[in-house]
Amino acid sequence: MEDFKVKILGCGSALPTTRHASSSQLVRLRDKMFMIDCGEGTQLQMRRCRQGFSRLGHIFISHLHGDHCFGLIGLISTLGMLGRGSAATLHIHSFPELETLLRPQIDFFCRDMAYEVVFHPFQPDTADIIYEDRSLTVQTIPLNHRIACSGFLFREKPSPRHILREMIDHYHIPISQINCIRNGADFTLDDGSVIPNDWLTTAPAPPRSYAYCCDTAPKSEIIPIIKGVDVLYHDATFATEDLPRAKQTFHSTSAGAASIAAKAEVKRLVLGHFSARYEDEELLLREAREVFPSTELAEEGMSIHIV
Amino acid sequence: MEDFKVKILGCGSALPTTRHASSSQLVRLRDKMFMIDCGEGTQLQMRRCRQGFSRLGHIFISHLHGDHCFGLIGLISTLGMLGRGSAATLHIHSFPELETLLRPQIDFFCRDMAYEVVFHPFQPDTADIIYEDRSLTVQTIPLNHRIACSGFLFREKPSPRHILREMIDHYHIPISQINCIRNGADFTLDDGSVIPNDWLTTAPAPPRSYAYCCDTAPKSEIIPIIKGVDVLYHDATFATEDLPRAKQTFHSTSAGAASIAAKAEVKRLVLGHFSARYEDEELLLREAREVFPSTELAEEGMSIHIV
Repeated sequence: MEDFKVKILGCGSALPTTRHASSSQLVRLRDKMFMIDCGEGTQLQMRRCRQGFSRLGHIFISHLHGDHCFGLIGLISTLGMLGRGSAATLHIHSFPELETLLRPQIDFFCRDMAYEVVFHPFQPDTADIIYEDRSLTVQTIPLNHRIACSGFLFREKPSPRHILREMIDHYHIPISQINCIRNGADFTLDDGSVIPNDWLTTAPAPPRSYAYCCDTAPKSEIIPIIKGVDVLYHDATFATEDLPRAKQTFHSTSAGAASIAAKAEVKRLVLGHFSARYEDEELLLREAREVFPSTELAEEGMSIHIV
Repeated sequence: MEDFKVKILGCGSALPTTRHASSSQLVRLRDKMFMIDCGEGTQLQMRRCRQGFSRLGHIFISHLHGDHCFGLIGLISTLGMLGRGSAATLHIHSFPELETLLRPQIDFFCRDMAYEVVFHPFQPDTADIIYEDRSLTVQTIPLNHRIACSGFLFREKPSPRHILREMIDHYHIPISQINCIRNGADFTLDDGSVIPNDWLTTAPAPPRSYAYCCDTAPKSEIIPIIKGVDVLYHDATFATEDLPRAKQTFHSTSAGAASIAAKAEVKRLVLGHFSARYEDEELLLREAREVFPSTELAEEGMSIHIV
């Protein structure tokens, strides 16, 4: 099975600290690398975490607050200086305003760049598939923040069933039928008897999924969208004692994040976007685990294997 | 004597590394704090180096390459979130294009900010005084880079002479005359005899000065401007073996920087803007010291006391 993993580059919130970098993470599946959010200093976090730049093809920006996008211009510029070629278009998915804001800077600061930056605007109010390739879809998740904000659901496509080679040989099944059998078809012998598919194949691993929901107040409407995902990364800016501040700023407490995770029956919850006010996040972890035990704290450099 | 010091926040060059941050430094004199250049991650470097944000009033941007200005929008935004008040206007001095590029971002990302950002454009081709207060002037130094680029000369104003209190008492000099005497006047007694000023005062410390010349190829026209400064910070991107690359990119070798320092008879030379290609900068230091012994390497967190 191909690795499907997430690398946390930054899990801090609006005010930068020496403990947490601004929001950014990398999602890798097969030979593809995607980025979610790109706060100031993201390119340096990539270096610190020893992540190469060349496989990065698509960047998804959740919303247009600075701690989620101020690192874009530096990253785009550095990719140019590193010699990224004209074949390697960089795709940025976000709300329409981002191109308006960033294009003049790209035109000015990145004049000599060989590769192109293409913006793919999406809408804030609907859950749409905004990216698709052979192995994966990415879908938006409308969230509840002070400004338009979208989460992202990375979902593997179902794999075909695994062929049992010795059974294929046993029944002398012609090669022309193999693809149909991979996709679940039974096979009919010359004498009319039917060999059921599950004699000929085994089930593939179930498709894996990862949901990023940040920044947001707890929003029950996302529950059907993220139902049963393998890993949910959720806004957990505050502890319960700061619930009024969470409500005021349209963020979540860790307990609020855990409640969403429990209702959505996700397998694991990773908490992130920590307020600079906490010395450490142990209280946030404790409060979340009371509601949803399978909870962890994000930290810079952490690898999350989606299994 | 008031402290006059420079704090190096970043002395790397275009490509970010884990060893050096992008260009930025703070200049402090009395209760004032100035910033020169503001590459990506500067606000975080300020935190790492435990530099408060509130006294920062003026930022000088040498040129519009990303590694010297991509940190501005994040810093401006953070100052707003930290509650900088409406009385604390932030002044940014640079070429006219900077406001065109940055204003739309400020308007979009910093809508709720109480304080104002005012841009003060200067011209690339003339050495002008662009800032002045009671104790200091800042003058531009036209440099020789791929695009318009300006260094900055921070020069203390001459202090008045120190009054020798016991001599004032001895000659019964009235208080109304003290300011004239501070400024160098002699005093005439009632009998017509003249007390020379240097019986009544001692000379103040000579005015101190700091020159920042980055990014630039060695440019002999700057020598009269920076003649005799206490400290010169100069572009030293390359070692001599990479001189062709230095010429091509309009940067200096450390030996080239040292040659300028020697001809300008500065007191100390600090090398900076190191290329990411060197494991360390010992070779750059050796090559510079062969030309100008009183040379040091910049490093992040370094404090330079101008004495």
